[in-house]
Amino acid sequence: MWSRYVAPERHYSTTELIKKEEETMLIVMKPNSTPQQIENVIQKIKEAGLAAHLSQGVETTLIGAIGETHDLPTELFEVLDGVDMVKRITQPFKLASRQFDPENSIFPIDGFQVGGNDIVLIAGPCAVESRSQILETAQAVREAGANALRGGVFKPRTSPYSFQGLGEEGLEYLAEAREETGMPIVVEIMSQNQLDLMTKYVDVLQVGARNMQNFNLLRTIGETRKSVLLKRGLSATIEELLMSAEYILAGGNKQVMLCERGIRTFETSTRNTTDINAIPVLKNLTHLPVILDPSHATGHSDYVAAIARAAVAAGADGLIVEVHPDPAHAASDGKQSLKPEKFAEMVKQVKAIAEVMGRRIAPIKKPVIAGW
Amino acid sequence: MWSRYVAPERHYSTTELIKKEEETMLIVMKPNSTPQQIENVIQKIKEAGLAAHLSQGVETTLIGAIGETHDLPTELFEVLDGVDMVKRITQPFKLASRQFDPENSIFPIDGFQVGGNDIVLIAGPCAVESRSQILETAQAVREAGANALRGGVFKPRTSPYSFQGLGEEGLEYLAEAREETGMPIVVEIMSQNQLDLMTKYVDVLQVGARNMQNFNLLRTIGETRKSVLLKRGLSATIEELLMSAEYILAGGNKQVMLCERGIRTFETSTRNTTDINAIPVLKNLTHLPVILDPSHATGHSDYVAAIARAAVAAGADGLIVEVHPDPAHAASDGKQSLKPEKFAEMVKQVKAIAEVMGRRIAPIKKPVIAGW
Amino acid sequence: MWSRYVAPERHYSTTELIKKEEETMLIVMKPNSTPQQIENVIQKIKEAGLAAHLSQGVETTLIGAIGETHDLPTELFEVLDGVDMVKRITQPFKLASRQFDPENSIFPIDGFQVGGNDIVLIAGPCAVESRSQILETAQAVREAGANALRGGVFKPRTSPYSFQGLGEEGLEYLAEAREETGMPIVVEIMSQNQLDLMTKYVDVLQVGARNMQNFNLLRTIGETRKSVLLKRGLSATIEELLMSAEYILAGGNKQVMLCERGIRTFETSTRNTTDINAIPVLKNLTHLPVILDPSHATGHSDYVAAIARAAVAAGADGLIVEVHPDPAHAASDGKQSLKPEKFAEMVKQVKAIAEVMGRRIAPIKKPVIAGW
Amino acid sequence: MWSRYVAPERHYSTTELIKKEEETMLIVMKPNSTPQQIENVIQKIKEAGLAAHLSQGVETTLIGAIGETHDLPTELFEVLDGVDMVKRITQPFKLASRQFDPENSIFPIDGFQVGGNDIVLIAGPCAVESRSQILETAQAVREAGANALRGGVFKPRTSPYSFQGLGEEGLEYLAEAREETGMPIVVEIMSQNQLDLMTKYVDVLQVGARNMQNFNLLRTIGETRKSVLLKRGLSATIEELLMSAEYILAGGNKQVMLCERGIRTFETSTRNTTDINAIPVLKNLTHLPVILDPSHATGHSDYVAAIARAAVAAGADGLIVEVHPDPAHAASDGKQSLKPEKFAEMVKQVKAIAEVMGRRIAPIKKPVIAGW
Repeated sequence: MWSRYVAPERHYSTTELIKKEEETMLIVMKPNSTPQQIENVIQKIKEAGLAAHLSQGVETTLIGAIGETHDLPTELFEVLDGVDMVKRITQPFKLASRQFDPENSIFPIDGFQVGGNDIVLIAGPCAVESRSQILETAQAVREAGANALRGGVFKPRTSPYSFQGLGEEGLEYLAEAREETGMPIVVEIMSQNQLDLMTKYVDVLQVGARNMQNFNLLRTIGETRKSVLLKRGLSATIEELLMSAEYILAGGNKQVMLCERGIRTFETSTRNTTDINAIPVLKNLTHLPVILDPSHATGHSDYVAAIARAAVAAGADGLIVEVHPDPAHAASDGKQSLKPEKFAEMVKQVKAIAEVMGRRIAPIKKPVIAGW
Repeated sequence: MWSRYVAPERHYSTTELIKKEEETMLIVMKPNSTPQQIENVIQKIKEAGLAAHLSQGVETTLIGAIGETHDLPTELFEVLDGVDMVKRITQPFKLASRQFDPENSIFPIDGFQVGGNDIVLIAGPCAVESRSQILETAQAVREAGANALRGGVFKPRTSPYSFQGLGEEGLEYLAEAREETGMPIVVEIMSQNQLDLMTKYVDVLQVGARNMQNFNLLRTIGETRKSVLLKRGLSATIEELLMSAEYILAGGNKQVMLCERGIRTFETSTRNTTDINAIPVLKNLTHLPVILDPSHATGHSDYVAAIARAAVAAGADGLIVEVHPDPAHAASDGKQSLKPEKFAEMVKQVKAIAEVMGRRIAPIKKPVIAGW
Repeated sequence: MWSRYVAPERHYSTTELIKKEEETMLIVMKPNSTPQQIENVIQKIKEAGLAAHLSQGVETTLIGAIGETHDLPTELFEVLDGVDMVKRITQPFKLASRQFDPENSIFPIDGFQVGGNDIVLIAGPCAVESRSQILETAQAVREAGANALRGGVFKPRTSPYSFQGLGEEGLEYLAEAREETGMPIVVEIMSQNQLDLMTKYVDVLQVGARNMQNFNLLRTIGETRKSVLLKRGLSATIEELLMSAEYILAGGNKQVMLCERGIRTFETSTRNTTDINAIPVLKNLTHLPVILDPSHATGHSDYVAAIARAAVAAGADGLIVEVHPDPAHAASDGKQSLKPEKFAEMVKQVKAIAEVMGRRIAPIKKPVIAGW
Repeated sequence: MWSRYVAPERHYSTTELIKKEEETMLIVMKPNSTPQQIENVIQKIKEAGLAAHLSQGVETTLIGAIGETHDLPTELFEVLDGVDMVKRITQPFKLASRQFDPENSIFPIDGFQVGGNDIVLIAGPCAVESRSQILETAQAVREAGANALRGGVFKPRTSPYSFQGLGEEGLEYLAEAREETGMPIVVEIMSQNQLDLMTKYVDVLQVGARNMQNFNLLRTIGETRKSVLLKRGLSATIEELLMSAEYILAGGNKQVMLCERGIRTFETSTRNTTDINAIPVLKNLTHLPVILDPSHATGHSDYVAAIARAAVAAGADGLIVEVHPDPAHAASDGKQSLKPEKFAEMVKQVKAIAEVMGRRIAPIKKPVIAGW
C-alpha cells in the first residue's frame, strides 16, 4: 500500500496549501511489453486517482499519468513489470515556482527591501570573535554601504578541534552592533534547539550549506515568520535547493532568499566553483530573491570583487560578503575575508555594474541613535 | 587574536583526549618574499608555540611549522604577506587514524561483532510502513542470513510532500521484530531532539548522508555509548568523513562504523557513483569498520548484488542492503530494494566471495523466543 | 534546413548499417501553449518523416515523435515556440546496444578469447623504456599468468616536458617480447598518423581516455579490423563511451573492448574514482566485453589488487594492469605500477574470485619458441 | 633509468626554450622512516642534479628538492621506501605563467588586438550549413558589432549519425564571408591532417574541448604561427588548460587565447557549469588572453546574455557566441544559438559593462569592398 493512504494526522502534510494543478508523469514501456503489463500500469494510474493517456507506436508504448502527481514517487510505476522508465514532466516544487507565482517575491528586512529593484549587500565577519571585532567591522561595512551585518556565533567546522563560536555572547555583541549602526543581523542557525535563542536576537536566519537538507530544521523555520537566507548545499542541484525552499514555504514562511555559494567540483584552484549559471536559471524558475556569496564561492579574497561584479551583472539580487578588520588574525575564513577598505572598493565597482543593469544598491537606513 | 585563546569553557574541546603528537604545516613563500616577511612568518609560528624550520634555496623559501598543528587553521599563515601557500602535511584527524591506533576497532553489537574477521549483513526496508511489512521483512532477511535489521521511522525526503515516516509507532514495530528474530535494529536519527526516543529503542544509530556534517548531532551522539553507522555525505571527501567520525570519537564513543553509500558525480546512469576505492583507502587510513550500502550506491535493484560482491572483494567489513517484500508498493526507494528471494541469492554470492577472502558472514544469533 | 537533407556523399554516414528500428522522442508543450504551436510541432514531426502521437490533458500536452529518430537532434523541436522540453526515449547508440544484439560479443585475440567465460589479464609497463625493461617485464607477467602485454610507445603527457615515449623503437622491442613470450601486444594509438605504424606491429589498438572523443581517430580505427581497447574519458558518461564505441562499430570493426579506468570527481585521495557501477551497467546495456584498469582507477599500487578483485566480482571480463620491474625508476606512472611479485599475488587473488563467479582466467598460450 | 637521460633527439624537448628557474619539490617522509631511507632520498635528489634541503622535527622529516624540477615526475620520489608524499611547490607550466612574463600578451588578429584593453567579440553559427546561411549570419553579427566570425566545418559530434560538417566547401563560404565583411574567421581544427587545409583558409585555429589534450595536435599547431583559441576540456583543471597552452607556446607559437566554455559537474539544469572563477584565476596565473563562451557554458540561449555580461564583469578579454539566423532549423546547437537581434541586444549590454570596467568593445574594421 502506498503512503498516500497512510493516516495523514501522523505526517507532515502541506498538500492543502498547494494550488491544485495538473501535472504529468510519463511511463515508457519496454519494447516487448505485453498488453497485460500495459493494462496493469493503466490500472495503477487509475487507482492513484489520475488520468491515463496511452500512445502506442509499432514498438514503443508511452503512457501519460496526468493529474496531481507531485507527491507521487516515480517508484510507484518504475517497479512494475514491463516498465522501462518513468519521467516526471512537471517540476516537483510548487510554492517556490515562478509558474505558481509569476511576480518576484519582494519582502522587507528592517530598513530595506529584498527581491525588488534594489541590490542588497550583507557583510561582516565569518564568526563573531569579540565585542570590539564585531563593532569595528559593523561600522566599517556600514560606511562602505552595507545594508545588513552577518556574523556566525555557532560555527559548523569540519574539525572538532577548530573554533566553534561564541554562542549567545556573540548574539549580544551583534545586537549591540545593530543598535549602533541600524543594520539588521544575519546569523546562521545550526539546529532546531537554537531556534528560541536565535529568534530572540536575529533578523534573518541563515541556513548553511551543510544544513540545506536538514529537513527538520527547515520545517521548524517554516513555522516562524523570520526572513531566511537559504544556502545551496555543496553538491545540491538547483532543483534540490528549490525543494528545500519548498519545505520552508510550505510552513507558511514566504520570506526566503536563496543563496548560491559555490558547488563542489573537480577544480581545486578555488575553494568551490561559483555556479554563475544558477543566477539566471533561478531567476527563471522561481520568484524568490537570489543572493550570491563570492567569499565561499571562491575562497580567496583576491577573487571576491570579480565574482561580486559578475553576480550583479548576471542578475543577482544581492551579495553576502565576508569582511574582517584583520584577516590575518581571523579565527576562521581569513583567507577569503576582505579588509574593510577592499570591501569599500568592491562596493563601488558593484554599484557601477548595478547602475548599468538599471538597478541600485539598496540605500542604507539611518540608525536611530546619535552619531550618524 | 586566534581562537586557541578563547576561553575554553564556552567551547567544545577534546584536545585533552588527543594523544600529543608532532605535526607539520609547510609554508611556501613567494619567490620575491622579503627577509622581513620571512621573519614575520617565523615569529607567528613561534607565537603559536611551534618550532620553525627554514629551508632556503636561491629563489624559494620553505618554512616548516612543527608541533601541535592539528587545531591550527592554515589561514593563520595564508593571510600573511609574502606567503604563497600553506599545506598541512599531517592528517587533520587523530582518533580515527590508523596511525593513532594501528589495530582494527572491533566491537560487539547484540549478537555479533563488527570490524573483525566476520562480515556483517544489515538488511531491511527503507522505511517502516506497517507492522506486518516490517515483521515479514525481518523474518525473511533473517532466514536469508542477515545479522541486523534496518528500517527508517523518520525519513529525510527531498520533497516536503513525500512520505515522512511512522515515527515512534515504527520504533515499536521494529522492537517487536527484534524480539521475534533476535536481530538488533539500525535506525536513522535525524535530529538531536530524537535522541531520547531513539536510544530507548535502537541498537545502532544511523547518521544519514545529509547529516554527515550536522556537527551538533554528531557531538550529541558522541556523548552516548550507542553504536553508530555514519554514512558518507553525497559530496564529502574521505577526509571529511573521517573528520565527522572524529566528532563522535572525541566524545568518547568509540563504536563507529563508516558507510560508503555512493557519491555524487556527473554520471547519471546510476543514482550515485559507488566509490569502491574508498574501501581500501579507508581500511588503510583508519581502524574503524567499513560498511558499504549497494542500494543507495547504485539506486537500481538490478545492480545491488554485483556491487555487494565487489565491496566484499575490496575488503568491506559489512553491507547494508534495502529489502522490501513488495518493492512495487514500497513507500520509498522501491526501485533499489531487493525482494527477499533476491536478497537470499545475494547473500549466497557474498558468502562465497567472503570465503575466498578468508572471512565469513557473521553467524546469526538464535532468538530467545520459540519457533526458531 | 536540417542536416538530414544535406547531400549524403559529403558526410560520413552509417545509417545504412543500422537495423531499422522504431524510436521515440517526446515533446512536452508548455502549459499555456496554443493550438497553433501544437500544430506546428506536429507539422515538423511529419516533415521529418515521423509519426506524431498527441496526448492532451487539461493543461498538459505531450507529443510523441515515433519513427527513425536516432539521428535527429532534439534541438529540432526544442527551439519551436511553445515547446517546454524534448526527451529522447530510446538509446542513441544502436550497434553497441544489447537490445540490438542480445548475445555477448566474443572475439579472439591471438591465443585467447575476450567477452566469453574467460577473464583476460593484460599487463605491462606504462611505457616501454628500454629493450631489457620490456623483455624482463614480459617474462615476469607471463609467468604470473598474463594473457597479453601492454606498453606505451607514444605517451600522452600533461606536460610537454615529460617523457614522450620511444616511438617505433619501442614497437620493435614489444614485437620481440611477443615473439619470446607468445603474448599479443596492446599499445595506445594517439593519432590517425600513427595508424600504419601501429597496425604493422600491434595486436590491440588502445584508445586512451583523452582520445575517447577524438572522432576522426575513432573512425579511422573503425575502418581497420584490429581489436580495440577503448578507454572511457575522464568525465565521459557511460552513454558517451557507448557512442564512441558506436563510431568504431559503425565502420565495421566489431572487436571493441570497453575499459573503465576511473572518472574524475571531487575526491582527491585517489587519482581517479573507479566507477565500479559501470561494470554491471555496461554489461546490461551492451554486448561488448568490459575491462577494468585498476592502476589508473586508483593511482596507487597499494589499492590495485583490491580494485582488481572488486572488478571481477562485479562482472568484468578482464583487467589491464601496470607492472614495472622497478617502479622507483619508472619513467611514468611508477606510483601506480605493481612489482612483478605483487602482480603475481594479485593474479592469485583474482583467480580465486573468478572461480567463485563460475569463470576462469584465460589460459596462457604456449609460445612457439623454445624455452617454454 | 629515468627518462631525462633518454637520448633527446628522439623526443620532443623544449627545455632549451625555458628560462632557467629554481623550483622546488617537497618530499615528506613517513613518521617512522629510517636514517637510511632519508639518505636514499637525498642521494636520489643529488643524482637528479638538484640540491637537497633537510628539515627534521622530532617525528617529521621534510626534504626539499630544489633546482630544475619542472620536468621531473613526482613518482621519482613517491616510490621510494619511507616516503609519505611528494608535493610540487612551483607551477609545472612556465611559458604560460605570469611569473615568467608579467605583462599581458597582446597580439593582433586581422583588424583588432586581443589581450589588451579592448574586448573582442567572436560570433557565428555552430556549423557552416550553406553559403547563404553563413553570409547572412556574417552580415548580421558584423552589424551588431562582432569582430570575428566563427563557424565549424568539421564537427565533433557525440553520435556518428549526427551532421559532421561541410568540410572544405564550408571553408570557401567562410572565406567569402570574410571578404564581404572584413572579419577574420575562427574555425575548429580536429586533426593534424587538417592543418594544411586550415592554415590555407583560417585566421584563428580553434582547438575544441575534446581535443584539449590531443597533444600531437597541440604540438603541430605550436609549430605554426597562426593564432589559436584553446578551449578548456570538459573536466580539465585550470592547471591542465595551462599545460596544454604550454605545448603550443613551447613550439614557439605565442598567440594563444584561452577559452572557458563550462565544465562538467553534477548540475543538470544547464548543459555545463560556467566556471566564472576561472576568469580571475587565469588572469592571475597567466599573461594569455581569456575568452568565455557563454553558449556552450550554459547550453540555453535564454541564459547567454546574462553569462556574457558576467564574464566581462569578471575580467574576460572577449566572448565567443553562437548566433544563427534560424535556430529552429540549425543543424546543431540550435538550442543555445542566439538570433541576430538577440545577439545585438547582448552586445549593447556587454558594451555597457565593458565601459564600467574601463574597457571597450574592439572597434570593427572597415572591409575593403564596397557597400560598407
